[in-house]
Amino acid sequence: MSKAGGDEVAGGSSSEKAQQPEDETPSGKVPSKLSATTTGPGWTKVSCPCCVSEQVEPLVLVKLGEKVRPETKRWLIKLIGAPQKDGGAALLAHPGEDASGDIIAVSAPRCTLLRATEELGLCKPYRNGDMEAFSYNDRDNFKDSDKMEVFLTLAERQYIVKYELDGLRAQRDLRIPGLSDSYTLQHRDNIWQKLGSARVIVDTLPLHNPEQLKNLSEAWYCGNQLAQPLDSVNGYFGSSVAFYFSFLDFYTWSLLLPAILGLSIAYFSGEVQKEMVDSVSASGVTHVEHDSAVSGHMILAVFSMLWSTVFMELWKRRSSSLSYRWGTLNLAERFAEPRPGFHGELGVNPVTGRVEPLFPEWQRDLRMALVSVPVVGLFLGLVVLGMLCFYWGEAQVQQLHKDWDSLLSQTLLYMPSVLHIVYTNMLATVYKTVAQSLTEYENHREESAYEKHLTTKVLVFTFFNYFAVLFHIAFFKQDVPLLRKRLASLLIVTQLVNQVTEVVIPFLVDRFISSPQRAESEDDPQEDKFRNQSNLPAFPGLFAEYIELLVQFGYLSLFSCVYPLTAVLLLINNLTEIRSDAYKICKLFRKPFFPPVANMGVWQTAFEVLSFVSVVSNCWLLLLSPRLQELCQENGMSSTNILLLAVLVEHVLILVKLILAVLIPDEPDWIRKKREHIEYTSMQALKQQKIQSEES
Amino acid sequence: MSKAGGDEVAGGSSSEKAQQPEDETPSGKVPSKLSATTTGPGWTKVSCPCCVSEQVEPLVLVKLGEKVRPETKRWLIKLIGAPQKDGGAALLAHPGEDASGDIIAVSAPRCTLLRATEELGLCKPYRNGDMEAFSYNDRDNFKDSDKMEVFLTLAERQYIVKYELDGLRAQRDLRIPGLSDSYTLQHRDNIWQKLGSARVIVDTLPLHNPEQLKNLSEAWYCGNQLAQPLDSVNGYFGSSVAFYFSFLDFYTWSLLLPAILGLSIAYFSGEVQKEMVDSVSASGVTHVEHDSAVSGHMILAVFSMLWSTVFMELWKRRSSSLSYRWGTLNLAERFAEPRPGFHGELGVNPVTGRVEPLFPEWQRDLRMALVSVPVVGLFLGLVVLGMLCFYWGEAQVQQLHKDWDSLLSQTLLYMPSVLHIVYTNMLATVYKTVAQSLTEYENHREESAYEKHLTTKVLVFTFFNYFAVLFHIAFFKQDVPLLRKRLASLLIVTQLVNQVTEVVIPFLVDRFISSPQRAESEDDPQEDKFRNQSNLPAFPGLFAEYIELLVQFGYLSLFSCVYPLTAVLLLINNLTEIRSDAYKICKLFRKPFFPPVANMGVWQTAFEVLSFVSVVSNCWLLLLSPRLQELCQENGMSSTNILLLAVLVEHVLILVKLILAVLIPDEPDWIRKKREHIEYTSMQALKQQKIQSEES
Repeated sequence: MSKAGGDEVAGGSSSEKAQQPEDETPSGKVPSKLSATTTGPGWTKVSCPCCVSEQVEPLVLVKLGEKVRPETKRWLIKLIGAPQKDGGAALLAHPGEDASGDIIAVSAPRCTLLRATEELGLCKPYRNGDMEAFSYNDRDNFKDSDKMEVFLTLAERQYIVKYELDGLRAQRDLRIPGLSDSYTLQHRDNIWQKLGSARVIVDTLPLHNPEQLKNLSEAWYCGNQLAQPLDSVNGYFGSSVAFYFSFLDFYTWSLLLPAILGLSIAYFSGEVQKEMVDSVSASGVTHVEHDSAVSGHMILAVFSMLWSTVFMELWKRRSSSLSYRWGTLNLAERFAEPRPGFHGELGVNPVTGRVEPLFPEWQRDLRMALVSVPVVGLFLGLVVLGMLCFYWGEAQVQQLHKDWDSLLSQTLLYMPSVLHIVYTNMLATVYKTVAQSLTEYENHREESAYEKHLTTKVLVFTFFNYFAVLFHIAFFKQDVPLLRKRLASLLIVTQLVNQVTEVVIPFLVDRFISSPQRAESEDDPQEDKFRNQSNLPAFPGLFAEYIELLVQFGYLSLFSCVYPLTAVLLLINNLTEIRSDAYKICKLFRKPFFPPVANMGVWQTAFEVLSFVSVVSNCWLLLLSPRLQELCQENGMSSTNILLLAVLVEHVLILVKLILAVLIPDEPDWIRKKREHIEYTSMQALKQQKIQSEES
Repeated sequence: MSKAGGDEVAGGSSSEKAQQPEDETPSGKVPSKLSATTTGPGWTKVSCPCCVSEQVEPLVLVKLGEKVRPETKRWLIKLIGAPQKDGGAALLAHPGEDASGDIIAVSAPRCTLLRATEELGLCKPYRNGDMEAFSYNDRDNFKDSDKMEVFLTLAERQYIVKYELDGLRAQRDLRIPGLSDSYTLQHRDNIWQKLGSARVIVDTLPLHNPEQLKNLSEAWYCGNQLAQPLDSVNGYFGSSVAFYFSFLDFYTWSLLLPAILGLSIAYFSGEVQKEMVDSVSASGVTHVEHDSAVSGHMILAVFSMLWSTVFMELWKRRSSSLSYRWGTLNLAERFAEPRPGFHGELGVNPVTGRVEPLFPEWQRDLRMALVSVPVVGLFLGLVVLGMLCFYWGEAQVQQLHKDWDSLLSQTLLYMPSVLHIVYTNMLATVYKTVAQSLTEYENHREESAYEKHLTTKVLVFTFFNYFAVLFHIAFFKQDVPLLRKRLASLLIVTQLVNQVTEVVIPFLVDRFISSPQRAESEDDPQEDKFRNQSNLPAFPGLFAEYIELLVQFGYLSLFSCVYPLTAVLLLINNLTEIRSDAYKICKLFRKPFFPPVANMGVWQTAFEVLSFVSVVSNCWLLLLSPRLQELCQENGMSSTNILLLAVLVEHVLILVKLILAVLIPDEPDWIRKKREHIEYTSMQALKQQKIQSEES
């Protein structure tokens, strides 16, 4: 997987014989052509002359089950290579070194790539330099549309291969050669899913491009560079990953301001020393407030509210610029084929007029209301149960410490917190599996809808899980010192745990257990290198990463005013997080498939919701600030009046936040104009088309 | 304006000679053609054979200034009749009985109507029954596209004439015949505006169709029918008016539930008697709360919150169905010509690629921030000033009553309220003019943006103006009986004042002052009938109507829990309001021009905002309810805790409201599918078009 691999790939595939031009065959001739071309040692042949190229780049590896018989493999290769009108995927397949081996390398010819680019609604640079929705018929006016390696990014090419494979459907009832009759395909069955359940296909994974990967990792995490190579990340891993890293980047830089403010407040108020004393002596429950510290508390509370609003608004603008730049402004997922897991009765889609499975909206709503919601509720109940146990434990330990007062009992003081955090993390893991099954059961048509509902489920739970205790301390116990202690321990423990589980363990496993087994030399056959990639663990997705950020953001915007060092700790954490996440995705896991996306999706909403909740939380914490209460009592205000004032301030601030959110446009002016231009031209085109179809 | 008029119009115009077919002239020949056809007594001739029809229906009346010279009129008629490529409006003009008279009747030929229908983005029934965005090239596939009277509604045809006239721009520098040199037209000047400022054109008004009007009024307000003929209203007055009446209708029926609830609460709690005593003896400040009355107060508060949410969500769904039905789902205003009042430097519009005036966004923002906002603030200050004076007066009068205690002083008790209401209404009138100039100065490109900003300005002010006192009483004085008294007097006085100023006075003026002067007989020339219409006062727009509804809705959703009869009073008011508004728009004013719209625009937002504020207000009024306070004190809760509880309840309710708003889709499922279908076909078409333009 090191230096020399890059040339190998190109060399390997070019040595496996370039494509020969072949005349376009009318559909009648196709069967004979297929049977003639798929048994040779090279790539399957392309069906149109424009797609013939000197080199074929292996994009995706299909790993077959061990017991798969050669005739099944031959049938599969034929299927992958067959034109779409014959029910194939119109891709290029390569059987590997050995026709009976357990891998198939898949690539895509130019025409298939271009047609899928149109189908996905990707935008590409037009000849006048603007990004325009790609149109196959107009392909010659798009820049570089003859050089697939430049025109489409590696991630896009690989996703297209997956998209085509996932979209394979049986055109008629069909027996799969070499398989028992129980796996006979019915009309419109999803072939890839069926083969997966028959264990013919064990895995489908995109292949790394060693040279590109090397360049990327050098620009990304090897040096001391400050900026991330986001465009290259988008090119190599796709826009989902690129959006995550862009957000992480933007967020980390935005932390600078609160970090500096927090640091200076902590420094000038002697907070630093106090915290140190606190954490060593664990005497957090005693009141050691200084006047100046509390005034820092107030500054931070107000600052947090403003910061989180401005941060989110600016991110939205940045996000839409990125989406324009990466050509995902105009994705057409609603109009594409449904996701493979989607099932329903065959019918005519009222939007596109195509025949495809339909699933009534009300039935989905019913499933959500009667199954998903109660199950999610149950888990939220478990969170509350955990919290109750934590309080019980806390009380017990305090009592113990009072009775014994030894070093042991002092250490025990932290036990309930630690146990609770562990319980919380475990529960989260179980819940994630449950949420996946629930969302699968809800049967969403689009990949993005599936992702959205899954994420929302996990998110609600996570929010509850991580923040229930903090809210309880802040709002019911109204105990600022305890909140501070808890926040500090959460920040430090969670971050340590995360860094260890996410990076250190996989790194050690990779270095000392897996790697020696698959040490590779330059002479290894190409096939073994592919196989090595498939032995890496699968990338666990961006859930965990986003949730980590969301929880961080929650700590910061909701409660940071009681612990000024929050932003500093987060900044340090994130600077390492960027590198460790980058290292992880490049080296420790298989290359993941990610669909092109236009924004962070539901995560953006989640961050926005948090930034609204932060107003409530900060107003409340302001109210709890002893300094403010003193001030008010000096001025002769009753506690009811202080409370009324706080409620008033809160409502005004929420109003200000809403007005700010409305006033700052979500997309820069120039993007809006581009988008309207696209809408305008497509409207114009509709009118043109009608007459054309009329005349013809 | 009565029975026989209908036939007259058709007869009158058909007797004025039908159009003769004429070969299409290449642009070189046009001048000679125009000079030959415009001096005769009939309509100007159409330029394409398909537009020739037996009858020409006069749609719009252009009223000229008294001093306009015949050559100017001839030039204007020529301009109206000239094809668009020669800078004309491609309409049909008729000089009236007398070539030197002061009116021009304007109609539109088929081609102009159809092209404008496409330009405006109106949807019309396609041959398969679906509504589709109209396309001129595909006109034959739309139902009834050869019968303009069926295909387009009267309102649409008239709006199109206005749209074409307003869009007239000088193609080169041009002296207008018969006018001084100071009125020379510059290249790209808006001709209609220039002629207006030169007093050549005094007025442009759509003409009534007496027969249709008679049918409409019979179906609308003459009988005892419960349902309004909304489709006919849309056809005759356009979708702006139709949306107002649909909303009024929907709102009035929705009032039934709160009215029944309010009535039963008032009845069972003896509230009715109490209120009567209250209003007669003006002893509202004394506490006469019954236990049962207060519990009604609580029921109503909770009910108001839920009702206002559900009401708004259901209305949004109804609104989108109506917009589909009326073909305004897909309006293309952003892509059309800018509104006539818009000015700026000539440039290429980046969206449509057309040359038109451009005005930078930031300059508009600057004008809003530096001029509009301060002026609006000033007026809000005047409202506060008025409120302070009101309180001062109130205190004085109370003192007086205490000193004298006579019938006179008792009457005087109501004086401050009445004076304040009058002041408030006067201020509102002045403000409306100011708001118009401000919005004109902001220089919005689209008519709808202009309307939106104007409405928002008026709305903020109105809200402040009407509700400042009520909020002050509820939140600062915390005086429920005063609030109740105030609300009752506002409801009764405002409604009486509105009904009188809106209907009774215009009716009396119309019947006894204007009408006798313009009594008409069947033998009157057509021209005089037109002239009579132009003597009616102009329709003042829907502002006042919507604001009345908004204020009503505010009383109801914000404060009705303290006065259960609110909904009943409003229901009675609205049942008469529907008829009086209908009568007013049909009989008392000129027929107004209204652009097609897809919804109520900014008004919908305003109602939604109010329904959120209602949560805050109702929670607060719940808190003030003495019964609740007793209850809590019995259970040993401190006032701080009650307040905390109320704040918690408020936040939860706002959350519930938000979730409800997200969960109930804003458009019914079938509309969403239709809309997506339109988007899909237009996306497909874009791809088709590119290749077409490539090939040609």
